[in-house]
Formats: sequence, structure tokens, C-alpha cells
Amino acid sequence: MALSFTGSRLDRADHVRADPERLAGYMNWKARLLVLDGLMPALDETNRLAWGTLADASEDAELVFLGLDYSESESGKACFAAVPQRGDASPRMANPQLWSLMATLAPDDLALYGGARSIVDWHARHRFCAQCGGDTKLAKGGWQRDCTACGTSHFPRTDPVTIMLVEYDGKLMLGRGLGWPEGSFSALAGFVEPGESIEEAVAREVLEESGVKVRDVSYVASQPWPFPSQLMIGCHSYADDDRLTIDETEMAEINWYARDEVKAALAGDGPFRAPPPHAIAHHLMHWWIHR
Amino acid sequence: MALSFTGSRLDRADHVRADPERLAGYMNWKARLLVLDGLMPALDETNRLAWGTLADASEDAELVFLGLDYSESESGKACFAAVPQRGDASPRMANPQLWSLMATLAPDDLALYGGARSIVDWHARHRFCAQCGGDTKLAKGGWQRDCTACGTSHFPRTDPVTIMLVEYDGKLMLGRGLGWPEGSFSALAGFVEPGESIEEAVAREVLEESGVKVRDVSYVASQPWPFPSQLMIGCHSYADDDRLTIDETEMAEINWYARDEVKAALAGDGPFRAPPPHAIAHHLMHWWIHR
Ligand SMILES: [Zn+2]
Ligand SMILES: [Zn+2]
Repeated sequence: MALSFTGSRLDRADHVRADPERLAGYMNWKARLLVLDGLMPALDETNRLAWGTLADASEDAELVFLGLDYSESESGKACFAAVPQRGDASPRMANPQLWSLMATLAPDDLALYGGARSIVDWHARHRFCAQCGGDTKLAKGGWQRDCTACGTSHFPRTDPVTIMLVEYDGKLMLGRGLGWPEGSFSALAGFVEPGESIEEAVAREVLEESGVKVRDVSYVASQPWPFPSQLMIGCHSYADDDRLTIDETEMAEINWYARDEVKAALAGDGPFRAPPPHAIAHHLMHWWIHR
Repeated sequence: MALSFTGSRLDRADHVRADPERLAGYMNWKARLLVLDGLMPALDETNRLAWGTLADASEDAELVFLGLDYSESESGKACFAAVPQRGDASPRMANPQLWSLMATLAPDDLALYGGARSIVDWHARHRFCAQCGGDTKLAKGGWQRDCTACGTSHFPRTDPVTIMLVEYDGKLMLGRGLGWPEGSFSALAGFVEPGESIEEAVAREVLEESGVKVRDVSYVASQPWPFPSQLMIGCHSYADDDRLTIDETEMAEINWYARDEVKAALAGDGPFRAPPPHAIAHHLMHWWIHR
């Protein structure tokens, strides 16, 4: 099963970003501009991402060089996206409007769009310098912002998040976060903090939210998640005890589910509603029932 | 072999951060303040991290709640660090002054210090709101900054970096970055960008820097790296070809080394200088020769 938001067909062509002459050479009438309405994509009549030309961007638009697309031209078509007026107002929330689009878009389009969304949203929410408050401007083809006052360079963020299966006696720990719909359960998750490894973050997060100590943390898979720009790091771990002490400031419920219950839920007919296929938790649960 | 900067003895006590009353309850004469000179630690006569009390902080100091230390008191000693006047002037460079300290500090002190350094440095370099340029102030015990003008919350950064072994025909690809001392070689590395998985970042980075395509990327280990706040994600991969096309804007040299050459280098007597034990690359190379 393929992981969502992975498999973009673009070559990021890192060497172009830092070379103003090469970059300028790509910013011509042949270049393609991703059509965005704010942060939302537009689809063409074949349900592919819609593209325009750089002429469609406003005069003063900041343009991000997304990379080269070799799928349509042997020399590579340069792809850009313009930074929107406003970034995401609730950057840490998955946008519900996007869920239907996710099911419609081809996987490589979804990956391309997800990466583009993360980077233009970052620009839109970082027009000022965190170091001095001065104005910043786009640099290196959009993979950097430089402060016009103090000169500090700022780089796009990618926030690592651990998301973990916890297994005890053949059962899986799944939780329902505060505010989630009744019956919806998924793997626990949390941001990796400064000063900890992936394995330490997994153990801390599970202990905080469920009161359960885990051991033998192992890595399973990763995928990007563009709300706003997370790197989801999927792991598996074992518990030696199933007694729960639920952190009621974060979780509404936590339960242990047997293999056949998880299997039924993934098939849409279980004791709880499983996360959708675009979430890495769905993939992790599949991995667990099949291994 | 233990990974450096992991194994802090502090309980991060996440529930205290969001509870102003509990947090205030810990900010008393019993609380400990990490002694810092700028971002540098101080050692006591037993070569442990030196601690003072909150009375040692200036009146207007911003204090970060690092967590609870249960090693000296059953009820947990609250540990804080003050945000220094200035953050790291070259945040992406490992500070050479620190290298000797790394060899001196006990592993759990090094982990505690690394995490504290990352977070107070982040505060010192993020006094302004990237969204509007307004002043920000410390919130949630130092695990957040809030804008006093527009109200946007900002969170500490952790930047995921992939660092990877590339193997071909029993040999390992190692490189010397531009500006590194003659004879020093390590694993290639690079930041995970928005819109890519760990596995995609590994493949892109190796292709960019060496011209080599890799397959079967697998995760090996991770460790935090406090310059300024990276999550090093160590991986292994295979190449089907050893022909190199070196990116001369990043790398001075790339070579393939046989197992016995890597082994000799780690023992301090090989054809190149191996990375020091505090770097995850050292650990990865050990893992590779012993597996
Ligand atoms: Zn500035
Ligand atoms: Zn603001």
C-alpha cells in the first residue's frame, strides 16, 4: 500500500535554487504555475492538478520553484507556485475541504500539491523576521527567506511527529482525541521535541497520554502531512501492562483492540471508525494486521 | 553503544506546562536553574552540570521549565533554564568550544544540556512574530511563544535531518564536505524538506550530492543534535552502481571504503578520519561493521 503525499514526480533540482542565473533561465513562458485559490488546488477536466503560466501570477507575487517535471518534457518543465496573500488560519488542522480532493487526486498529484502547499503556506506565515521583526523576502527559489533588516536567513519548517502502535498481548492501543467524533479511534501521536530521539519521543508521548510504559520501539514508515508541514514518523512498540491512566486534557478515550477488531474496522465494519487511507495511521494498522 | 544527547534524566512533565497554577507552584526556592554563560554550560567540581536557584536569574528573565528531576528527590525537583540575551550567532554550526565539554560531561547531563540549549536558543532567536513582526512572549512554561500583537502561537523547531550509509558491493560511501579538514570523512546528510518522506529525502540527498541512485532505504537509529535543534535520522541504503558525480558546491570528495578500512578508521588508524563518537555517523559506521 502506497503512503499518501509521497511519490511526487518533480525533481526538486536543488542546484537550480542556489544559482540565480539558472533559476532566471527557467522563469520563462514555458514554465508552469500551479493554480491555487488561496491554498486550495484547482483541478482540470481530467481531475489532474490545473496549471497556468507565470503570466497568471500578479506582478509582485513571490514565486517558489517547486522543481522540474520530466514526465512531459525531456528537458524538464519548470514548475512554480505563488505565495498566497494569506497562509492557513488554522495551520495545525487538516482542512476538511481537502478530504474529498484527496480521494480525487492522483497520488503523484497529491504529493506534488502537498509539498507545494506546505512551502507556500510557510512563506505566507513568515513574512517577518523572528530574530528582529524586520521584513523578510523570498530567496533561493523559495527555499529560504532573508531578513531585509538584519540579514538572518530563515528556512522552511518540517516538524517531526511520532505516531505509534502500542501492542500488548496481541491487542493494539488506539485512542480518541478530545473533540473527535464518537467512535473514531487512531494511533497516539505527538511532536518530537528538542533534545529527544524518535524512540524517546514515542515513549514519552505514550506515557503522557495513556500512562503506559513502552519498550522495543521500532520504525515502520514515514510520510509527509501538509497541515501545515509535518513529517509523520510511524513506529511500533510493546507494552508490558495494559492498565491505562488517560490524560483527559488530550484524550477522550483509549482502548485496546484485538487483531480481528482492527481488521474489521479497516474494512469499515468494526467496533470503531478507523482513520482514512490518507493518514499514516491507516497504513500502520494495515501493516500490523498483516505482519 | 549509547547515542549521544539521548537519555536525559528529566521527566518533561508536559501536564505542568499548560497548568499555570502547577507551574507557579514549582517556581519556588527549591527549583533549580541551569547555570549558563550565554549558551555554554558551567561544570561543578565533580564535572556535573552546575545549577543555581531561580534567584540567580535576572528580574525580567524568561524562564523555561525543563522538567522534573526525580533522581535527587522523590517528589521531583523542578529544573529551569533562563533565555539568554543572545541566541547562537551561527546556529547551524557545531560550536567547537563544546567538543571538549562533550567528552567531559556524563551522558545524561549532555542530553539534558543539549535539550535545554536547543530550547533557550530558539527563544532567544524568536523574540518576534514571523506572522506580523510583533513582540512575542514566552508561554506554556517555555514550550510556546505567543505574539502580543496578533496572538499567533509559535512552537519550538525540531528540524529532521537524514544521514545515511550507502552501500555498494561491501563498500561504504563517505564524503568530505567543503571546508572540512583534509582526510575527514562522514556519512552524507541533508534536511528533510516539506513534502517528502524520510526514504525520499535519503534518495534525493544521495542523488544530489553523489549522483548515485539508492534503493531499500531502512531506518537505523536517531539522535537529537543541538546545533541548533536537529533530529538526526540515521538510515542505511543500497546502491546498484558506484560511479560518482560529485556535487562540487557541497562536497570536496566522496569515496567508497571497504569494511576493514572503516573499521580501522573508527579505531583511529585508517585511511581517513572518522567522525567523533558524539556524531550519529560514528554510531552508524559501528553498526555497519558489526552487523
Ligand atoms: Zn531580521
Ligand atoms: Zn503576530
